[in-house]
Amino acid sequence: MFITFEGPDGSGKTTQVKRIGRKLIEKGFDIVYTREPGGTEISDQVREILMNMKNKQMCPRTEILLFCAARAQLVEEVIRPALQSGKIVISDRYADSTLAYQGYGHGFEQETLKQLLNFATGNLWPDLTFLLDIPAEKGLRRRINNQEEWNRMDDYQLAFHERVRNGYHQLAAADPQRWEIIDADQSEEAVENEIMQRLARRLHF
Amino acid sequence: MFITFEGPDGSGKTTQVKRIGRKLIEKGFDIVYTREPGGTEISDQVREILMNMKNKQMCPRTEILLFCAARAQLVEEVIRPALQSGKIVISDRYADSTLAYQGYGHGFEQETLKQLLNFATGNLWPDLTFLLDIPAEKGLRRRINNQEEWNRMDDYQLAFHERVRNGYHQLAAADPQRWEIIDADQSEEAVENEIMQRLARRLHF
Repeated sequence: MFITFEGPDGSGKTTQVKRIGRKLIEKGFDIVYTREPGGTEISDQVREILMNMKNKQMCPRTEILLFCAARAQLVEEVIRPALQSGKIVISDRYADSTLAYQGYGHGFEQETLKQLLNFATGNLWPDLTFLLDIPAEKGLRRRINNQEEWNRMDDYQLAFHERVRNGYHQLAAADPQRWEIIDADQSEEAVENEIMQRLARRLHF
Repeated sequence: MFITFEGPDGSGKTTQVKRIGRKLIEKGFDIVYTREPGGTEISDQVREILMNMKNKQMCPRTEILLFCAARAQLVEEVIRPALQSGKIVISDRYADSTLAYQGYGHGFEQETLKQLLNFATGNLWPDLTFLLDIPAEKGLRRRINNQEEWNRMDDYQLAFHERVRNGYHQLAAADPQRWEIIDADQSEEAVENEIMQRLARRLHF
């Protein structure tokens, strides 16, 4: 089973991926974690290009293609083999991040991006996706240490992150069988409990 | 005007790109050279991943997406601005290499690759493409210093390069307005003269 966590930075995805993974291991499940972009030797080299602050002149199409290249390698080397051997793969972000950020956030066409993603992943989509949902402004503020640093740039970012959040909700509405929306504006324990309840129903434990 | 050179390694593309460029500069044209993959700071970082011998486990989809990422950046940063300022851009390989090698050579669908390439390049295709045509075996042998090193691997490669050559001919046949096929199994001077004659007709000098 292939489970992904989506949502803005600051929504607690990485924390929950770890907590949920530990719980599932306790219950005897065999778990593989992945994180995007990265997760293989080649994908990590691509991640370095994407994250390098010197590469400010990177154009949006290059960025999308590099995310897809890192993902293609991760699917081939890690995710697909793990799924084929019966493991549960939990990924911190996956293809839906491209649809939400580059699509709804930056205005690239959904259909074009889906074709690209189908090529990159060999049509592999998650069985289950948790959207850790949080108002855009709260997510942004959680990432800023000093609240007084909120500035004009963050106002611009706020509009962007509202489009991304709205995009995630549209993706979830279009495929409710796959998506579970979790209110992430709660304590870590409460979020974990809600995720585990939904997982119990899906995995029959 | 956007001019590309295609054909197998060993067909003399790099030599001819330089010779033709010099001739056009003598005639007063403003020339920009590019080479794939690479040609910008970011594209060169991608090139390093593609060329690094350690990255043997790279899967074909990753490779295609990395070529496309490097190309997207090259188009945006170098090729399109040069064309917009009225220069002649001469590129040693471009999108047709993906169609020939990954498509005809490795069996990826032409339509899928074309969609990818249209995304990466923002639908920018060359105005004129020279196919430096050479029998596959001659191209391969030109690249092997010691002729006695020809081995079983090269037999495998020969079949691959024959598919690539055949692919280039199909691409040229489908768009004869754009493609000029040059017999590259001649002296450098003879090849250069043939290219210059065809250019004279196209550029009206």
